[in-house]
Amino acid sequence: MSKRKEITLKFIKKLSSAVNKNNISKVKELINELHSADIAEILEKVSLNEAQFIYQILDEEKSAEILLEIDDNLREDLLAALSAKEIAEEVIENLESDDAADLIGELSEKKQEEVLSHIEDTEYASNISDLLAYPEDTAGGLMAKELIKVNQNWNTLICLREMRKQAKNIKKVHTIYVVDDNEKLLGSLSLKRLLLTETNMPVKKIINSDIISTKATENNQNVANIMNKYDLVVLPVVDQNNKLLGRITIDDVMDVVKEEAEKDYQMASGITEDVESSDSVWTLTRARLPWLLIGMIGGVIGAEIIGIFDIQKNFELAFFIPLIAAMGGNVGVQSAAIVVQGLANNSLNTKDTFHKLTKELAVGLLNGLICSFIILVSTIMLGYGNELSLTVSISLLAVIIFAALFGTFIPLTLEKYNIDPALATGPFITTINDVLGLFIYFLIGQAIF
Amino acid sequence: MSKRKEITLKFIKKLSSAVNKNNISKVKELINELHSADIAEILEKVSLNEAQFIYQILDEEKSAEILLEIDDNLREDLLAALSAKEIAEEVIENLESDDAADLIGELSEKKQEEVLSHIEDTEYASNISDLLAYPEDTAGGLMAKELIKVNQNWNTLICLREMRKQAKNIKKVHTIYVVDDNEKLLGSLSLKRLLLTETNMPVKKIINSDIISTKATENNQNVANIMNKYDLVVLPVVDQNNKLLGRITIDDVMDVVKEEAEKDYQMASGITEDVESSDSVWTLTRARLPWLLIGMIGGVIGAEIIGIFDIQKNFELAFFIPLIAAMGGNVGVQSAAIVVQGLANNSLNTKDTFHKLTKELAVGLLNGLICSFIILVSTIMLGYGNELSLTVSISLLAVIIFAALFGTFIPLTLEKYNIDPALATGPFITTINDVLGLFIYFLIGQAIF
Repeated sequence: MSKRKEITLKFIKKLSSAVNKNNISKVKELINELHSADIAEILEKVSLNEAQFIYQILDEEKSAEILLEIDDNLREDLLAALSAKEIAEEVIENLESDDAADLIGELSEKKQEEVLSHIEDTEYASNISDLLAYPEDTAGGLMAKELIKVNQNWNTLICLREMRKQAKNIKKVHTIYVVDDNEKLLGSLSLKRLLLTETNMPVKKIINSDIISTKATENNQNVANIMNKYDLVVLPVVDQNNKLLGRITIDDVMDVVKEEAEKDYQMASGITEDVESSDSVWTLTRARLPWLLIGMIGGVIGAEIIGIFDIQKNFELAFFIPLIAAMGGNVGVQSAAIVVQGLANNSLNTKDTFHKLTKELAVGLLNGLICSFIILVSTIMLGYGNELSLTVSISLLAVIIFAALFGTFIPLTLEKYNIDPALATGPFITTINDVLGLFIYFLIGQAIF
Repeated sequence: MSKRKEITLKFIKKLSSAVNKNNISKVKELINELHSADIAEILEKVSLNEAQFIYQILDEEKSAEILLEIDDNLREDLLAALSAKEIAEEVIENLESDDAADLIGELSEKKQEEVLSHIEDTEYASNISDLLAYPEDTAGGLMAKELIKVNQNWNTLICLREMRKQAKNIKKVHTIYVVDDNEKLLGSLSLKRLLLTETNMPVKKIINSDIISTKATENNQNVANIMNKYDLVVLPVVDQNNKLLGRITIDDVMDVVKEEAEKDYQMASGITEDVESSDSVWTLTRARLPWLLIGMIGGVIGAEIIGIFDIQKNFELAFFIPLIAAMGGNVGVQSAAIVVQGLANNSLNTKDTFHKLTKELAVGLLNGLICSFIILVSTIMLGYGNELSLTVSISLLAVIIFAALFGTFIPLTLEKYNIDPALATGPFITTINDVLGLFIYFLIGQAIF
């Protein structure tokens, strides 16, 4: 293994040509020194056949790691070429339990059992089975079983000996946990403490009992909030009786945070499934259709509203339909976005609804007054006439205030009923605001003309 | 310090009442056992006077930590009450260099100098000065100077002795770095290695030279990508000659990732400044105005376009103005969002422009055909007449395809010229697509009628 490397197009071409010439030693030479994350990037950039060729050349430990880093579709393809026995021996046995469980969890149930039955280390296999039982979006679903733990009654010498034993089976030592005879979590031993303490000290005396843990049933979004709030790199997971079950590392939580942010972002942009630009045309199309359909329904309702009023007589009203519709949607999305972000950050909660609505009313009023003044002056200067200018200006004020309140109220209400408030930033809020904006506009227009 | 605690409204009330009664011992009793992150949460929820009262009661080490966790406005208020000497002695000397530099960086230049001059440990003061020289958004701006390093020529015994010495000045030991006589970074010693190795081994022999580092000038977004890609908890920072300067920990990078995601999200929602729901009415208003103004300009241009065509004669065309405008904007935002996310994840680059446009054309065509078929059938069934239904249906197809291409092209082009592509998800794309959609609609309408 080695330092990081930028994967250039030139490098990929060189590698592809070596693969196509079946030149194994050349391929090995090219990828030998690379970090598994870089090889993963390469596998995603070459064809499936080439990826399979390269994958088979890699040594086991590396290939197992790489499987974790490539995207879901490619992983599925590469695993499909392996038997249950190969998956167990070449992949699973080289992974830590959390990654192993995630990977096995993606297989069919039948294959899961087969793979588990081929794992030689029965304790490891049963650890993986345990982990598979936790829902994916809980602390239990995120945790790994591998950890270093010492008994509070040991002294430093026994402790070091036992830790050496345990460390052999573990890739990275994060924290040394201290437990009692019933495996209940009591605290931790810091590496610093260990470095500063001379030999033969009882563990009990140097334990750091100031430890934050989480229950296995905790939602993974809360786990991320806890680790973020308390700046933790590892978080121990316990059962209802405080028995130590495993630990969650920050890299897994980073993924949770990223996925959540991406999901909110996509919802705000009107995309309903978790898609990437590399997905198929049909997946991308399907992910966008729902909002487009809702937008169309809104558009048809808008047409019906316009039809109610006598547009033929006051045809000038048509000029500012786009302005009114756009502004209603925009303001609604802005207001909703700030609420959704506040809720996600825990800096806002549903009890603040009334206070938040009052504030939003002030913001809406201010924005509305500024915009409606500007539009009044502009339209008069552009020669649209006093009646139309007044209609547009008054409606705009009403629409902006209304949309701001609505954009705040909807996500807070969704949150209260445990529905993802990010929904409100997408289709519903814009479409509803578009339609209601039109209604207000024509109502005021009819009154003035 | 202690375990985490949920901060209830009831608890806040109890605390406030103790503060208002000047009951110091009661306040101490209430907050004594709390984690600094929880106290930070409390300070944000009480009034400024109460926060100042509580802050003064806290012991120094805790109050320094808490200052890092509260929001910018409150921190400014609390620091304003302290002299330069107090800031240096009570706050800065209890922090690690990266946090100290961040905090000092927020003060006026005059106060910065005063505070630095009051720091007793001159080496620490010069470390902070060094850090202040790096731009905030680079690896240098994120790193801390505190780290444990050993010389490759030492043996394990000297090494342990030196490490004990160094560890005394450091809060948390992350990694043990190995350097040569010129302080050049050679690799690391893992805790596991340390646990497994018997005494008296030369460092050279157990060094792990497979180490990933970053230059101090690296952009912090890239730092986050590196740490995320290679699953790193700490990243050493070096200068141009590979001399070890400091290290960046994952918690600081988590903040970078979160801020970036929030910024993109806000841009997609049409908010231009980094705002929180707790900000003032005027800040919130100002953050939203730019998009609203751009939307208004678009609306006025839309009005002019409608004015070009003879709407009085074909007044039915007005019915579907909202639908066409909304769909253009929606599709544009959807396409742009996927590109922006791909660019942020490094899974897409500007060289893919042509390929991406072709794919987007396919997605647009598919979405467009589905939507325009549905709208054709619906409008005919709703009795809007063949001419109008045909106009709407054909325009919709054209608008969707056009908006999809535009939404892909703009962010890729912005990225090419090093402008934040997230800009494209906000005002520009929706407004431009709205306006162009209208133009296409009336053009086709005039041809058909």
